[in-house]
Amino acid sequence: MSVSLIPLTGIPEVGAGDDLVALLLGAADAADIALEDGDVVVVSSKVVSKSLGLWADSADRGAAVMSQTVRVVAERMSQGRITRIVQSTAGPVMAAAGVDASNTGHRDDVLLLPANPDAEAEHLRVALLAATGLQRLGVVLSDTAGRPWRSGQTDFALGASGVLVVDDLRGAVDADGRPLSVTARAVGDELAAAADLVKGKADAIPAALVRGTGWALPHGGAGARVLLRTGREDWFDHGSSEAVRAALGVEPGSLEAEEVGIPDVGPTPRADRLRRAVAVALRGTPQVGMDVGGDEVHLSGQSAYQLGVAVTRLQVALWGEGLTTEAPDEVDGVEVRLEVRER
Amino acid sequence: MSVSLIPLTGIPEVGAGDDLVALLLGAADAADIALEDGDVVVVSSKVVSKSLGLWADSADRGAAVMSQTVRVVAERMSQGRITRIVQSTAGPVMAAAGVDASNTGHRDDVLLLPANPDAEAEHLRVALLAATGLQRLGVVLSDTAGRPWRSGQTDFALGASGVLVVDDLRGAVDADGRPLSVTARAVGDELAAAADLVKGKADAIPAALVRGTGWALPHGGAGARVLLRTGREDWFDHGSSEAVRAALGVEPGSLEAEEVGIPDVGPTPRADRLRRAVAVALRGTPQVGMDVGGDEVHLSGQSAYQLGVAVTRLQVALWGEGLTTEAPDEVDGVEVRLEVRER
Repeated sequence: MSVSLIPLTGIPEVGAGDDLVALLLGAADAADIALEDGDVVVVSSKVVSKSLGLWADSADRGAAVMSQTVRVVAERMSQGRITRIVQSTAGPVMAAAGVDASNTGHRDDVLLLPANPDAEAEHLRVALLAATGLQRLGVVLSDTAGRPWRSGQTDFALGASGVLVVDDLRGAVDADGRPLSVTARAVGDELAAAADLVKGKADAIPAALVRGTGWALPHGGAGARVLLRTGREDWFDHGSSEAVRAALGVEPGSLEAEEVGIPDVGPTPRADRLRRAVAVALRGTPQVGMDVGGDEVHLSGQSAYQLGVAVTRLQVALWGEGLTTEAPDEVDGVEVRLEVRER
Repeated sequence: MSVSLIPLTGIPEVGAGDDLVALLLGAADAADIALEDGDVVVVSSKVVSKSLGLWADSADRGAAVMSQTVRVVAERMSQGRITRIVQSTAGPVMAAAGVDASNTGHRDDVLLLPANPDAEAEHLRVALLAATGLQRLGVVLSDTAGRPWRSGQTDFALGASGVLVVDDLRGAVDADGRPLSVTARAVGDELAAAADLVKGKADAIPAALVRGTGWALPHGGAGARVLLRTGREDWFDHGSSEAVRAALGVEPGSLEAEEVGIPDVGPTPRADRLRRAVAVALRGTPQVGMDVGGDEVHLSGQSAYQLGVAVTRLQVALWGEGLTTEAPDEVDGVEVRLEVRER
């Protein structure tokens, strides 16, 4: 059976306290669209945040981001500003915790994500059912994010209510009786991505209907929170560079990380990467001297033990900067020169 | 304007050498669906692989996966088998390089991805245009994969032809004249995800039409390869554990990694994690002794330098296993006991 993606156009700029349900249904009416049982209403989280008045002063965007951050996953410098990928208080791992400076209608403010996206989706769904007298509607709060390994950004389900966000096929078998390779379809994210094809971003269309996916509207239905993969199941809780820096005691997001220097987004001269690696290595061995000359580092410790620690910390830190060095198996005395090269 | 997602049902099991265009158009005819200019035809890569006869013996699935692997990003043990997330020869980073044992119609074989998905999409598009006499069609080869930080799997664009796979809005500004926060929409992936809402996985519907996204069909149009983020731009080229192991000289996918032991998918007793960390640490300091007793490790080297190297390697390796230890700043002699605890 076919599925229709129907944009809800003509929704005016949303302000704090505005009645989203009235705006959504008004836009539908104006376009002669009547909501039907089984429809999924996909709404950009941005208009929900606006209706909740979730503004913060853009003068201190960094502070706004950190206030929405549970933990920093990765960070890079770009034009003198730090871009952080973080686990947001709203739930998902996103750049800048989803704090949005664009298209907010407030030139001097940034917009924060709803603290509990699933609860907002639930409120919207209950209000839509009440206003329409319908029995079954789904609501997805969509937001936009980049992905590791893939260019560009896609919409995903930040919040959901009344929707089968994960279609768990575990235990199901294929036509040959073999377990399905896909065990759980992230339907919530696919609904959000589909709706983005008609909502777009440049055009101000903050909502769309997905019609024809009634199978995705169970009674009840989990929130989008079940789409979050955290803890042991998350194999990527640190970026590659951040993992080795953290293993050496320099956690991303810490003051220490800024002091030793945060890797750049763009290509970086080897001298800068080497300087950062030395700074990270020295964190654990302040008593050791590390003098850099070109691609050579001269290490001198107060003891052979400290030298072994420093050489190894530098070797690990260099990896995080795409560099490497041959460390000697044994050292005579408390000094050594290491030749650094690209990994 | 609305968008329609139209499943192409009734496509029979595809075999090597079958004419996919005939099968797709036959299914459309049977359902009274006529392709139109501006349609995007989304086809599961699986049926393309079947038509190309890309089978491999499932007896050695591991070898099949490695033959499709450019580099290993992360790996975990699960029920005695290694699950690897790798950069595939087909392009994307995927579990098991996209090698598929389910729903292949050959009980004893596994199915490989097309070597050049964009070229296959281009062949399909050219043949569809010739067979239909239409002027503008897009083709997306879809496949399914999990994502870091998100549960479940979604469809994405493995290959594409005639489609605007990335809608680059860089430089565009919003209504307030501010740069858009979304700079590049991954339209190719959103088309694949949308089509999955009607293709599904359990039901054998390998293709669907996306109708109403004519704006996404530029003349020419890049392949899905532009959706791949690699090299310096990829902040997640190793899993967190794999990054620290690689920094200590134990690359994922190497025989060495199997010898020291690969982390498990599920929860693992501390003793096992500690044993692996010790094995990784010893790789660099074979002359050092590391005796484990409970949560304590007794290290004894032939020299203070070696001890410093070993203590630091162990400290870094422990981080990769979610463990930590306090290392002394200085050691008297060539022995030390370290207390290990959860990180």
